[in-house]
Amino acid sequence: MLRIDHIGIAVKDLNSSSKLIEQLLGKPSYKTETVESEKVTTEFFEIGESKIELLLAESEDSPIAKFIEKRGEGIHHIAFEVEDIEKEIERLKNEGFQFISDKPKQGADNKMICFLHPKTSNGVLVELCQSKE
Amino acid sequence: MLRIDHIGIAVKDLNSSSKLIEQLLGKPSYKTETVESEKVTTEFFEIGESKIELLLAESEDSPIAKFIEKRGEGIHHIAFEVEDIEKEIERLKNEGFQFISDKPKQGADNKMICFLHPKTSNGVLVELCQSKE
Repeated sequence: MLRIDHIGIAVKDLNSSSKLIEQLLGKPSYKTETVESEKVTTEFFEIGESKIELLLAESEDSPIAKFIEKRGEGIHHIAFEVEDIEKEIERLKNEGFQFISDKPKQGADNKMICFLHPKTSNGVLVELCQSKE
Repeated sequence: MLRIDHIGIAVKDLNSSSKLIEQLLGKPSYKTETVESEKVTTEFFEIGESKIELLLAESEDSPIAKFIEKRGEGIHHIAFEVEDIEKEIERLKNEGFQFISDKPKQGADNKMICFLHPKTSNGVLVELCQSKE
């Protein structure tokens, strides 16, 4: 685990939330990107070595739509940058952590990503991510 | 806003959660500290320029006990390190953000802290913190 790559925040309205985070951090987002596999549009803000990622559902069956329906807007997940995602998945499985999917997949921001199941990580949805070369 | 100082995670059992985060990050905590004003015991783990802060309620009327009763264990807040907390409170008030308390108070980790109300920050409990010299 190298650092906190980003904190994902589930939002209902990307325009108003983007303005809000811009006011909070004192600087604008640096990109938006739609991730088809997750049915979300993302918007990124830099803060130190980390990022804030806003997450807008693009479909009612998006995991983000389901999260907001159940818990309302707010922090959705924490993502850690790792050097070798395959090795980290193996290491964490051996420690007893469960994963939502077994194999890394393409995420936003040119990364390979994988989610741990919150039931084995203290109610926290944890994402591992590895930058692609 | 300089960086993500820490992510606060509400837990029911500090021993088991501490072991879990140690397994997740691959390294042990570096300190525990009780914050009387918040009625919590905290435990800190380093990750890059940031930290994970576990939060255990020391009383039934602790904000952490109330959070867990309502939402279960999980991510409680995100804290940003700032250079001048008084100036940031002033700036953010002018932007329309509301604070839970108007004045910074002593927090864990030798910092002055202040919380924004989640109702004006997209459902996210945001802490500002400034290291004391």
